Amino acid sequence: MADFTVTERNRVRRAPKRGQYDRKTVHAILDEGLICHVAYVIDGQPFVIPTAYWRDGDHVYLHGSAASRTMRAGERGLELSLAVTLLDGIVMARSGFHHSLNYRSVIMYGTATLVSDPVTKEAALDKFMDRVAPGRVAECRPINAQEFKATTVLSLPLDDVSAKVRSGPPIDDEEDYALPVWAGVIPVQQITGTPEPDPRMPDGTPVPDNIANFKF
Amino acid sequence: MADFTVTERNRVRRAPKRGQYDRKTVHAILDEGLICHVAYVIDGQPFVIPTAYWRDGDHVYLHGSAASRTMRAGERGLELSLAVTLLDGIVMARSGFHHSLNYRSVIMYGTATLVSDPVTKEAALDKFMDRVAPGRVAECRPINAQEFKATTVLSLPLDDVSAKVRSGPPIDDEEDYALPVWAGVIPVQQITGTPEPDPRMPDGTPVPDNIANFKF
Repeated sequence: MADFTVTERNRVRRAPKRGQYDRKTVHAILDEGLICHVAYVIDGQPFVIPTAYWRDGDHVYLHGSAASRTMRAGERGLELSLAVTLLDGIVMARSGFHHSLNYRSVIMYGTATLVSDPVTKEAALDKFMDRVAPGRVAECRPINAQEFKATTVLSLPLDDVSAKVRSGPPIDDEEDYALPVWAGVIPVQQITGTPEPDPRMPDGTPVPDNIANFKF
Repeated sequence: MADFTVTERNRVRRAPKRGQYDRKTVHAILDEGLICHVAYVIDGQPFVIPTAYWRDGDHVYLHGSAASRTMRAGERGLELSLAVTLLDGIVMARSGFHHSLNYRSVIMYGTATLVSDPVTKEAALDKFMDRVAPGRVAECRPINAQEFKATTVLSLPLDDVSAKVRSGPPIDDEEDYALPVWAGVIPVQQITGTPEPDPRMPDGTPVPDNIANFKF
């Protein structure tokens, strides 16, 4: 089920069996993550930067200070490469060579478009806030003109994209399975803890459901 | 305490107060992570790839299939940019604009060197295994000549490097602190779970301490 065209650029080269090109897998990985790593090239030099992102339909969105190098690179239409990586486990094999990681990752390529229309831009920022905590936009002090101007929003089409997934136990050499070496998977998970209230909140500030039952 | 020289390349540009250039901070972040994102440029196109890494002294090491594009890029001496990002929290402010993330990240730049001396190369691979689970090298079936040849190890000096750290509650506009909006931090943490034994292990295979009490 390749919803996305496999090209020379997005084709998964190492362990090609782990490559996946369907929308459902790509969306699910993107919708679970919060931070991506964006790479771009300036004067031949690669730069890679961690930044928050969100997905809406067939686009991934980035935002940041209008003065940031990454935002300006995107706005200028530089080629971007973007990775989202979810680590699921450490795979302990009977030989060092077959040790591995369980993970779900997405790599995408392309150029970004500046989201300049004010209505679309504010809707995109709201989408991100409510993706982090549903209903949060309605609770917060609204964005003002200066903040709006100082924030750049970029969109990147989900087009030249692939997912790569490894799961399950180690794959050892057949003759190694008889060895008395512990083998298996150490699961890895990202969790959120108990919300830590800002000490400067006025007494009696209510704790909304989206904080009390925070889920990411 | 800038152990590392601040250059035009490694200088933290956005929120420069969060930039740190001391060895202790950089090492602590690198030693807590397991996956980095490496960027490089081929024919003007940026590529970013998640991969495992480890630190030993003043170098970061990468390994992979000798046939992989990333390993070959490193071996050819292409400029690399490498990011390690640890997410610590989601910062909920009184305005959307001041929402943020708590994180510790390291960005490094430079070219890699192929670790070709067999003794040094094997020691480097052993270092990685034992960093994941102390004592694991001694428990596993040793690496064979074919596996050794098929694995590339690269080292990258910790030199052109910076750390960036945000911690603590939101920083809101002064007039917003009086608003009845819940503000604070949702802590985020990566944890490991109960080891999942490979169903193909022979009955009675012992569970060593480094698995029973796995810590990462």
